[in-house]
Amino acid sequence: MRVRLRNPDRDVDVAGARRVREVLADLSVDPDTVLVIRERTLLTREDWLDEADEIEVRPVISGGAGRAGRPLRCRRCKEPAVVELRRHNAAFCRDCFFHYVREQVRRAIKDHDMLAPGERVMVAVSGGKDSLALWDILLDLEYEATGMYLGLGIGEYSDRSAEVVRRFAKERGAEVVMVDLRDEYGYDIPTAGRKGSRSTCAVCGLSKRYVFNRAALHHGFDVVATGHNLDDEAATLLGNTLRWQTEYIARQFPVLPAREGMVKKVKPLHRLSELETAAYAFMRGIDYVVEECPLVAGNTQLKHKEAMNRLEAGSPGTKAQFYLGYLDRAAGLFADGAAAALRPCEQCGQPTTGRFCAFCRAQAQILGRRLAPPTDAQVAAESTSESMPTEIYGG
Amino acid sequence: MRVRLRNPDRDVDVAGARRVREVLADLSVDPDTVLVIRERTLLTREDWLDEADEIEVRPVISGGAGRAGRPLRCRRCKEPAVVELRRHNAAFCRDCFFHYVREQVRRAIKDHDMLAPGERVMVAVSGGKDSLALWDILLDLEYEATGMYLGLGIGEYSDRSAEVVRRFAKERGAEVVMVDLRDEYGYDIPTAGRKGSRSTCAVCGLSKRYVFNRAALHHGFDVVATGHNLDDEAATLLGNTLRWQTEYIARQFPVLPAREGMVKKVKPLHRLSELETAAYAFMRGIDYVVEECPLVAGNTQLKHKEAMNRLEAGSPGTKAQFYLGYLDRAAGLFADGAAAALRPCEQCGQPTTGRFCAFCRAQAQILGRRLAPPTDAQVAAESTSESMPTEIYGG
Repeated sequence: MRVRLRNPDRDVDVAGARRVREVLADLSVDPDTVLVIRERTLLTREDWLDEADEIEVRPVISGGAGRAGRPLRCRRCKEPAVVELRRHNAAFCRDCFFHYVREQVRRAIKDHDMLAPGERVMVAVSGGKDSLALWDILLDLEYEATGMYLGLGIGEYSDRSAEVVRRFAKERGAEVVMVDLRDEYGYDIPTAGRKGSRSTCAVCGLSKRYVFNRAALHHGFDVVATGHNLDDEAATLLGNTLRWQTEYIARQFPVLPAREGMVKKVKPLHRLSELETAAYAFMRGIDYVVEECPLVAGNTQLKHKEAMNRLEAGSPGTKAQFYLGYLDRAAGLFADGAAAALRPCEQCGQPTTGRFCAFCRAQAQILGRRLAPPTDAQVAAESTSESMPTEIYGG
Repeated sequence: MRVRLRNPDRDVDVAGARRVREVLADLSVDPDTVLVIRERTLLTREDWLDEADEIEVRPVISGGAGRAGRPLRCRRCKEPAVVELRRHNAAFCRDCFFHYVREQVRRAIKDHDMLAPGERVMVAVSGGKDSLALWDILLDLEYEATGMYLGLGIGEYSDRSAEVVRRFAKERGAEVVMVDLRDEYGYDIPTAGRKGSRSTCAVCGLSKRYVFNRAALHHGFDVVATGHNLDDEAATLLGNTLRWQTEYIARQFPVLPAREGMVKKVKPLHRLSELETAAYAFMRGIDYVVEECPLVAGNTQLKHKEAMNRLEAGSPGTKAQFYLGYLDRAAGLFADGAAAALRPCEQCGQPTTGRFCAFCRAQAQILGRRLAPPTDAQVAAESTSESMPTEIYGG
């Protein structure tokens, strides 16, 4: 059979009829970190492959998945299963898996009062599996969810991401706001990584948080929803805990309430693993960007994800126990410190704890500008113009 | 050259003159987890090996160690270095390394008020590198330190361990108390692992804590010192944190003060990594048991050590930042819960929170006995006899 390994891409021929798990073992691929796809259908590790098959092995950087032996049955309806969730010791058919995913999101929203009826939600979409799955689920749950895409200027990767987002919005008849970092703020992420003092991933994260918040306020959204999944949250919590950064730990909640100048932020996928969101996006036929960001190599977050994946492989459920256990039993211990007082940044007016916000400081450094309060003329021009995110694609 | 890989043991022939790091890379050995020894001398990863050399590669399950390039110099005296500590970005010659190790122990004792002048210390010794290194250091620092060895009944492994401990005591002119679990309490660890409901490692840990405490009280010691190193403490903290077992986290301190029926417990090696204690024991010429306990395979603590070692390899200093950072910045957050009230176990009289202590419950299960308060006749016999640890080796 022909095996197409993705990211980096290479093709391998494997002889004979074999089970999926045997083929993966031969290729030294951890089955908990990939989707195995044949003719647009997911396979479980117990499925048989024959000589004529062509399969794709698509990394998700995470997950669930199987035990040896007999074919798997759906926990809910007893039909043949297509996806296995080892941490729940369960398998599901396609429809029951969709039900499971939506229930997890519904429960996250309910338990943490993420979205009230009538609130306008902005979904921060990158073109990846998580954010598109989130948007898809929120639309299915009948929330009024508008996408927002921020163009980061990372060459073909960004071009393809923007295209994927536009197409998704069109197919779902949803609105999307397209913002371009270079057009609006004068730099792109590759430049910021080279010129600034922060790592590329740090300045990218800072830029996204800033722009999404500002754009949400400008367009009158009540809530920004992001596609952070259980793996993201567990890896971040691990990083913060290894350094006992107690203020960061305290803030790692699936809901951050609105404050002066800060829109409410929610993470409705925080109960779902990366394997689960990837399987959902794939089975729903969502065309998402499989490639990793080309700038992400060696990123600390990835090392923490790898550490959590190894622990999960040895003891399924470790990630959920760690992150959801933190929310249940430990978050209260860290919550003591009162939130620092905020004041408007003297450059942009967004809330910050110092004189200038981190975004304006980073931007000034990248562009080689001095930080200074805007002139009266600039303030007057800003208050009368509608200079904000532009392109809006309606459904 | 002939390379003797230890634990499990195998010999490999490697052709040509090579650097230590090249040989280790060929053998897929992580240099941060082994001592490399030629003719009873430690090698650094930059040392050259030639065709005629015979070297031993001895696992320590942890640590420090090197960058590429030039020969290393001692940070303190500038002579050629024999050991490298990557987390401190430092290397030391033999004597300065001994100085470094003793200073770390001295600092631990001072910072945490572990030992007051005139206090009698009992060192819990297993025959492994950590506990013998600790005993050696405490004797050098002129503490009155008596060893205590508990025979666990794990076949040849225990026989060899007891022999190593007896010989160390004799060479150093130190006293050691030898206790045998089967003789004193009616079971050994292999039996306990098979018959009890706890894992082998859990019942072994419980037995050691119980017997050492009881023996220390019986012999009038003020403090029990154990050889837990930084890797042990970091791995345990990781395990407790992954499950947010806040009561266990709160108790993970290098000093546990005395309470009713509980002697004070201290961990003077908690600032030293496993690689450091292994290098110290080796360079001091201490004959220690290199073999891992044969019952330990698959132990959760080892998985947590592996996870910490990978994180340490990517970012030297992670373990120290995690455990010492916890002590500095986070321990206070967990310390709130008042210690549970203790009462005497109705079987053995040792302090416990329930009616019978965990040790007596485990022992009853292993021996197939019913738990019951001792009869008056037993109490009378106990109070008049000196039925406790027996063999004492004087120096």
